[in-house]
Amino acid sequence: MSAQSPIVDLPCALIGFNDLVALLHALFIKHGTSPEVAAILAHNCASAERDGAHSHGIFRIPGYLSTLASGWVNGHAVPRVTDVASGFLRVDACNGFAQPALEAARALLVDKARSAGIALLAIHNSHHFAALWPDVEPFAEEGLVALSVVNSMTCVVPHGADRPLFGTNPIAFAAPRADGPPIVFDLATSAIAHGDVQIAARNGERLPPGMGVDSLGQPTQDPRAVLEGGALLPFGGHKGSALSMMVELLAAALTGGNFSFEFNWADHPGARTPWTGQLLIVIDPSKTAGQSFAERSQELVRQMHAAGLRRLPGDRRHRTRAKSLEAGIEIDAKALQQLRELAGE
Amino acid sequence: MSAQSPIVDLPCALIGFNDLVALLHALFIKHGTSPEVAAILAHNCASAERDGAHSHGIFRIPGYLSTLASGWVNGHAVPRVTDVASGFLRVDACNGFAQPALEAARALLVDKARSAGIALLAIHNSHHFAALWPDVEPFAEEGLVALSVVNSMTCVVPHGADRPLFGTNPIAFAAPRADGPPIVFDLATSAIAHGDVQIAARNGERLPPGMGVDSLGQPTQDPRAVLEGGALLPFGGHKGSALSMMVELLAAALTGGNFSFEFNWADHPGARTPWTGQLLIVIDPSKTAGQSFAERSQELVRQMHAAGLRRLPGDRRHRTRAKSLEAGIEIDAKALQQLRELAGE
Repeated sequence: MSAQSPIVDLPCALIGFNDLVALLHALFIKHGTSPEVAAILAHNCASAERDGAHSHGIFRIPGYLSTLASGWVNGHAVPRVTDVASGFLRVDACNGFAQPALEAARALLVDKARSAGIALLAIHNSHHFAALWPDVEPFAEEGLVALSVVNSMTCVVPHGADRPLFGTNPIAFAAPRADGPPIVFDLATSAIAHGDVQIAARNGERLPPGMGVDSLGQPTQDPRAVLEGGALLPFGGHKGSALSMMVELLAAALTGGNFSFEFNWADHPGARTPWTGQLLIVIDPSKTAGQSFAERSQELVRQMHAAGLRRLPGDRRHRTRAKSLEAGIEIDAKALQQLRELAGE
Repeated sequence: MSAQSPIVDLPCALIGFNDLVALLHALFIKHGTSPEVAAILAHNCASAERDGAHSHGIFRIPGYLSTLASGWVNGHAVPRVTDVASGFLRVDACNGFAQPALEAARALLVDKARSAGIALLAIHNSHHFAALWPDVEPFAEEGLVALSVVNSMTCVVPHGADRPLFGTNPIAFAAPRADGPPIVFDLATSAIAHGDVQIAARNGERLPPGMGVDSLGQPTQDPRAVLEGGALLPFGGHKGSALSMMVELLAAALTGGNFSFEFNWADHPGARTPWTGQLLIVIDPSKTAGQSFAERSQELVRQMHAAGLRRLPGDRRHRTRAKSLEAGIEIDAKALQQLRELAGE
């Protein structure tokens, strides 16, 4: 189950969400994390798999194990939270993963948002190797509005530049609504997510045009040419590029983390996780006058449907989630067997 | 100087920035605003003209006058500021323009951002008819990071929908840097700004492909077909569309303002200004540990230049500004004469 031995078109097995979490929990502990970190990463990774977000599900496990084995990230890190101001929290992830850093600050962040109306969490010295929507969705489930940005590693050519500088630098947003699950999106500011390029390469598929360039800076639709010395383009030309720049400023300059181009993992063969920063902003919409926010966002959804929009951002994930929770999560049988072996079962 | 009598290719006159502000100040007062509102709008509009942001400079004056004459907007409105929480301010613009509402709250907003680390300004019952960058740039000049979104009026078809629903819904961002003017961008989440479509129509130019649809929902490059019953598309496909949806949620649902599709100006012939809301978030980056934010953002700029980027967002505006302040602002001579007549000079 390494990047070199792709698994395609094999029989599927079904596994319950809690069973997958338990399996991944055991796997992470066996490969160098504390039980606390293992619990958080296992839940995060199983959630992505449950929701059909395959590029951030068990597909990521080899990368996690390889980066842990390399000593690049500290799987036992205990985040240090600093209460800076009534709306401002800082977390030093201590060279660990970003998700435990967020978890360590979550309760205080929510308290601050409810009290001050808005609160900011600046995480630095952190490694983010997962989807970004799991970081914001839980706030919306509590009635809060949340926005997060994280920078990653140099692989995107800024619009108008000659060579890559930015990361894929996603933006995720979540907002509650009255009659359904939160409105959630998570978009890479690159034209395509890095994980999707890896999956295309694994499956031998070509990329749509406009996604990337090869090692000579020429446009290419070959995912391997992008991965081997090439680079991605930002989405939406100069606008997506400006947003990617903003993510560098917010997730790195504002948190005290590294820019996407600043870390050097040359001494850690097998390292896969960008060592950067992450910013979260959480807002309490009950501070607004008038009708409740959730009623208003529901009205927007109603009108989006009336305008002919069949699918909202997040809809597909929620449908897959419901199916997975009812019938079990479909996983390639060989991959599941390999996970069990890696977990020592 | 109405939309029906385009002015093109005529001799240019030069006017100093302060003289243009004074001229527009007199003009606004004469056409239905208080001196306080006139001062703010005149400075805003002259700044856009000074910076070469023509779609939001004196090009907008006919629209301002038409909307004021229609009774749609209150040119004498006195904004009401409510101090909601340590990081949350609300302003009722009282059916006036958004810029005086921001001005009324600015000092308190800066105090809150410096004290809480982050602060939010929710403006509702407001009309925004100007560029968005002038709203954020001054915060960065004080060493703060600022983000603003404003929704507008139905003219953008959500990605995957059949008919328009969103506004052009711009996002503006400003951040200080050590060795130069702030990093500032202001981007419509539509593929093109509405003002640029109007200018293309005025000048008889065609639009690039992918910008808009005609009244039947078919792709068109004719700006008049877009303006007359057609609509714009979001930039960057589903990603730009998701961001536009976020702007509706932040600028309207979160402020208590109207969505872009909610107001009805049918009873106010000549009305031009969207009656919606605006959100600003201001962050104090000095709350971060480590090297100063301005040094870090300067490092990003250095690396962007080293990657071959010749022009940063905002560079062209700053160059035009320097030229305008030295040599005067170039304005079409007939247009300047018409401004003087409208101002009663």
